Amino acid sequence: MNIVVEFFFFVVTFKVLWAFVLAAARWLVRPKEKSVAGQVCLITGAGSGLGRLFALEFARRRALLVLWDINTQSNEETAGMVRHIYRDLEAADAAALQGNSDRRPRHFLIQENRTFTCQLGLCKENVYLTAERVRKEVGEVSVLVNNAGVVSGHHLLECPDELIERTMMVNCHAHFWTTKAFLPTMLEINHGHIVTVASSLGLFSTAGDYCASKFGVVGFHESLSHELKAAEKDGIKTTKEIEPFLPPLKPDYCVKQAMKAILTDQPMICTPRLMYIVTFMKSILPFEAVVCMYRFLGADKCMYPFIAQRKQATNNNEAKNGI
Amino acid sequence: MNIVVEFFFFVVTFKVLWAFVLAAARWLVRPKEKSVAGQVCLITGAGSGLGRLFALEFARRRALLVLWDINTQSNEETAGMVRHIYRDLEAADAAALQGNSDRRPRHFLIQENRTFTCQLGLCKENVYLTAERVRKEVGEVSVLVNNAGVVSGHHLLECPDELIERTMMVNCHAHFWTTKAFLPTMLEINHGHIVTVASSLGLFSTAGDYCASKFGVVGFHESLSHELKAAEKDGIKTTKEIEPFLPPLKPDYCVKQAMKAILTDQPMICTPRLMYIVTFMKSILPFEAVVCMYRFLGADKCMYPFIAQRKQATNNNEAKNGI
Repeated sequence: MNIVVEFFFFVVTFKVLWAFVLAAARWLVRPKEKSVAGQVCLITGAGSGLGRLFALEFARRRALLVLWDINTQSNEETAGMVRHIYRDLEAADAAALQGNSDRRPRHFLIQENRTFTCQLGLCKENVYLTAERVRKEVGEVSVLVNNAGVVSGHHLLECPDELIERTMMVNCHAHFWTTKAFLPTMLEINHGHIVTVASSLGLFSTAGDYCASKFGVVGFHESLSHELKAAEKDGIKTTKEIEPFLPPLKPDYCVKQAMKAILTDQPMICTPRLMYIVTFMKSILPFEAVVCMYRFLGADKCMYPFIAQRKQATNNNEAKNGI
Repeated sequence: MNIVVEFFFFVVTFKVLWAFVLAAARWLVRPKEKSVAGQVCLITGAGSGLGRLFALEFARRRALLVLWDINTQSNEETAGMVRHIYRDLEAADAAALQGNSDRRPRHFLIQENRTFTCQLGLCKENVYLTAERVRKEVGEVSVLVNNAGVVSGHHLLECPDELIERTMMVNCHAHFWTTKAFLPTMLEINHGHIVTVASSLGLFSTAGDYCASKFGVVGFHESLSHELKAAEKDGIKTTKEIEPFLPPLKPDYCVKQAMKAILTDQPMICTPRLMYIVTFMKSILPFEAVVCMYRFLGADKCMYPFIAQRKQATNNNEAKNGI
C-alpha cells in the first residue's frame, strides 16, 4: 500500500482512538465547569418549563439573563425569580466582604435581567427586531439557549395544518433565525456557545409534526456544529441536549445534567442515558425489531396520553386559548 | 423474577430475534416484487433527476403515472418518455398476442399518463387543490413517491431566509400536505405505499438548511411508519430511501436499488450500503471522532463544491432564475 495512504489511515485511526481516550477521561475526571458570570445568556421559551429552569441555573452562576417568551406574564414571573436569585447572591457577596474592605467583590455584580416578548413562530422579522433590541439594550449574546418548543398533540391526519406549521416554525425554523441573529458576532470574536434543546423524539419514535420538527432541529444543530468545526471556529461551542419526552425523570434533574454538559463544553447530552443505547439499537436493528423495541418502551404510543389529555381539555373548553 | 415479566421479556426477545431471521432471509432469498400494474402512482418532482428516473421505472412496470413538478416543460418531457415506454409495452404485448387470439392481454394496458404543475413549496392549498384534481381526473393514488427536493447551496449565514424557508417547505413540509391528501383513502382500504426520498444528509453531515429539512423528513417518515404500525394498518407500506448526496454512484443505479426495495416492501434502503455503517458509527463514536470520520469521508465539506458551483453560476448570471 502507498506509504502516504498508510500514514493517512494511521492519522485517522489515531485521532479516532484519541477521541475515545478524551471521552473516557471526561467520563472519569469531570472537567472544570467554565464561568458564565457576567456573560449575556439568552434563553428562548423562558416563561415556563425547561426554559425557566435553565434561567434559574444560569442566574445562580451570575450570568446576565435575557429572557424571551411569547407569554409576557409568565416571562416576567421567571424574571422575578431570577431577580430573587441575584439579590441572594448580592447579599451573600456583601456578607463575605463584611469586615474585609480590602477585598473586592469576587464577581461582576448583576443588577438586572431583561425580558423580551417574542413570537418565534410567527415571523422571522419579529426575531430579528427583538435581537436588535437585545444587542442595543443589553449587549452581545455569549450563550444562546434555543429552548422554545410547542407540541400540537394530535395524530397526523387529525392535526390542523396551522398547528403543524406552528410546530415546525417554533421548534425548527426559529433556530435558524436566532442563530443567524447572534452567530455573526460570536464568529467575529471566536467566542460563544449555542445550546439546542432537542428531544428524544428528535432521535426516534412517533409523534407526527413534533417528531419532524425535532429531527429537523437535530439536523440543524449537527450541521451547525460540523460547519463551525470545518471553519475551525473552535471558540464557539455547541451542545445538543436530548430531553426525554413526557419524562419519568424530573425536569430539574434533566436541566442540572444539561447545565453540567454546557459548562464543560460537552457536545451532546442525553437524559436518561438509556437513550444512547436506544439510538445505538436503532442503528443496528431491522425495522420490525425497532417496532418491537418501541412497543416495549411504549415509545410508539408515547404521544397518546398527551393527545387524550389535549382532547379532554378541548372538551372542557380549556384548551381553546392554548392552541 | 415474576413469571409474567419473564414471559414478556421472552416474547420481546423472540420477536427481535425473529425480525433478525426475517431480515437475513430477505437478504439471502430476495422476495418476489409486487405488481404495480394499473395502480395510480404519483411522483413529486418528476420533471428531472431521481423523480424522472422513478417515473420511467414505474412506467416500465405498467403503473398509471401522475407526475407533479413545478416546471411544466420538464414535467412534460418526462411524460413524453413515459408515453414512449407505454407504446413499447403495448407493441410488445401486441406482438406476444399475435396469432394467439385466445389469450387476453397479460396486463391492463395503460394509454395515458398525466402531468400536473404543482408548487409544493409555495402553499399547501395548491397541493390540496392539485390532489383533488388528481382524484377526480385519474383516481385514488396507491403509490405516493415524495421525491421533490431543492438545495439552496449556501453556508448557513450566507443563505437568504427565503431560500431556507423554501428548502424547509419543499423538502419537509410538503410531505405533510401530500400525505394528508392521499393517506385517508389508503387507510380506508388499508392499501397503499408511501415512499420518502430522503438523503444521506438526513442522517449526518453538514449542509445547513438542507440537512435540517432532510433530517425533518426522516423524522416525519419514521413517525408515520410507526404511527401506521401502532394503528395496525399493515396494508399500507412505507419505504424510506436514503440517497447519496452528490453521488459517486450513478442515479440510475440508486433508483434501481430503490425500486427493488419499494416493490419488496422494504422499510428502508441506503445507497451505497456504506451509509448503514456510517450511521452505526455515528451512534457509537464520540463527537470528536465523528468530526474526524466526516473529515475522512469529506462529508464535513460535501456541500462546498455545490456552493462553489452555485457561486460561479451566480457570477455568470446563470442562477438568477434558478433560485
